[in-house]
Amino acid sequence: MTDKHKNKMQKLKEKVDAGIAAADQERGVMIVLTGDGKGKSSSAFGMVIRALGYHYKVGVVQFIKGEQLSGEELYLRDQCPEVDFYQMGTGFTWNTQDREGDIEAAQATWAVAKKMLTDDRYHLVVLDELTYMLSFNYLDESEVLTTLKNRPANQSVVVTGRGGGSALQEIADTVSEIREVKHAYRAGIQARRGVDF
Amino acid sequence: MTDKHKNKMQKLKEKVDAGIAAADQERGVMIVLTGDGKGKSSSAFGMVIRALGYHYKVGVVQFIKGEQLSGEELYLRDQCPEVDFYQMGTGFTWNTQDREGDIEAAQATWAVAKKMLTDDRYHLVVLDELTYMLSFNYLDESEVLTTLKNRPANQSVVVTGRGGGSALQEIADTVSEIREVKHAYRAGIQARRGVDF
Repeated sequence: MTDKHKNKMQKLKEKVDAGIAAADQERGVMIVLTGDGKGKSSSAFGMVIRALGYHYKVGVVQFIKGEQLSGEELYLRDQCPEVDFYQMGTGFTWNTQDREGDIEAAQATWAVAKKMLTDDRYHLVVLDELTYMLSFNYLDESEVLTTLKNRPANQSVVVTGRGGGSALQEIADTVSEIREVKHAYRAGIQARRGVDF
Repeated sequence: MTDKHKNKMQKLKEKVDAGIAAADQERGVMIVLTGDGKGKSSSAFGMVIRALGYHYKVGVVQFIKGEQLSGEELYLRDQCPEVDFYQMGTGFTWNTQDREGDIEAAQATWAVAKKMLTDDRYHLVVLDELTYMLSFNYLDESEVLTTLKNRPANQSVVVTGRGGGSALQEIADTVSEIREVKHAYRAGIQARRGVDF
């Protein structure tokens, strides 16, 4: 029994070690977190925590969100001097119902993101809900993709949101699709402060 | 064109508002983040950021991990006095290859988690990689499930890891499956400090 366990674990260890040995490139990565389930933005903020653990400089740009105060905004903006935090601040587009105003806000927000994406002092840049700006055609896709591709080699970038098109996923190193298996909301449970926002 | 956009956004707003109105229960939630893709643990740490934004008390227990220093450990343990951070610290089970020792470590770690899960001062408790303890039968499933179900009503809990069995998902309010679409690692890119760990 113990030998069986040992053998099994030894094989698993060899597999894991071989994978580690095969990965020999070291550079910043581009990660896309998409899908309809809960956990896309929060996953990006978790990577912010990892970067802060090593005292790296971090940029966070939130597209869309802004009407409802959120825990990440309160924390990253007010309690993290190492994080440059910027929020579009016009609320969800289905609330504003003003296409011209939304495009203007998206482009001003993109200008902030673009500065970070050309500044190698940022180890990690989070572009939260950027995908919607592409899906709604509020930003020029080819400009966004070119800027992402040409970012500093050591910089990692995380893009979150549903959709966003296949070209975005093609240039990414890592793509995770967060699939909703079930959601509290559908069972009538309110979004929870300090968990959902 | 503008009217068409307005109508579309108005319909979307009605749908979103109806969903919000239907969610009338307010209580802590149990979230399971599973699947083979990148983003499970980082998503849990992102929720920690949200809770910290509101100055809530948070508990984080990491099962399995411990050999490699991680950004979340450095940050949550050393820079976040509001977070009670505990790590099993025996490394991955395929490294230790010692079933009896692993079971002992898992049970000692579970004792720490259980204390948090019976203490209503914790607004959020993260049980990172708990699922493996269930899959390997290092912990008694029914005790774990009962403790999770009986936790304080206002406490939210996030469980991460692949597998873990269907009973765990059944008692959860929200389950997200993080599916790997692609991963940098498979293209030979090393895990990145301040992003992956």
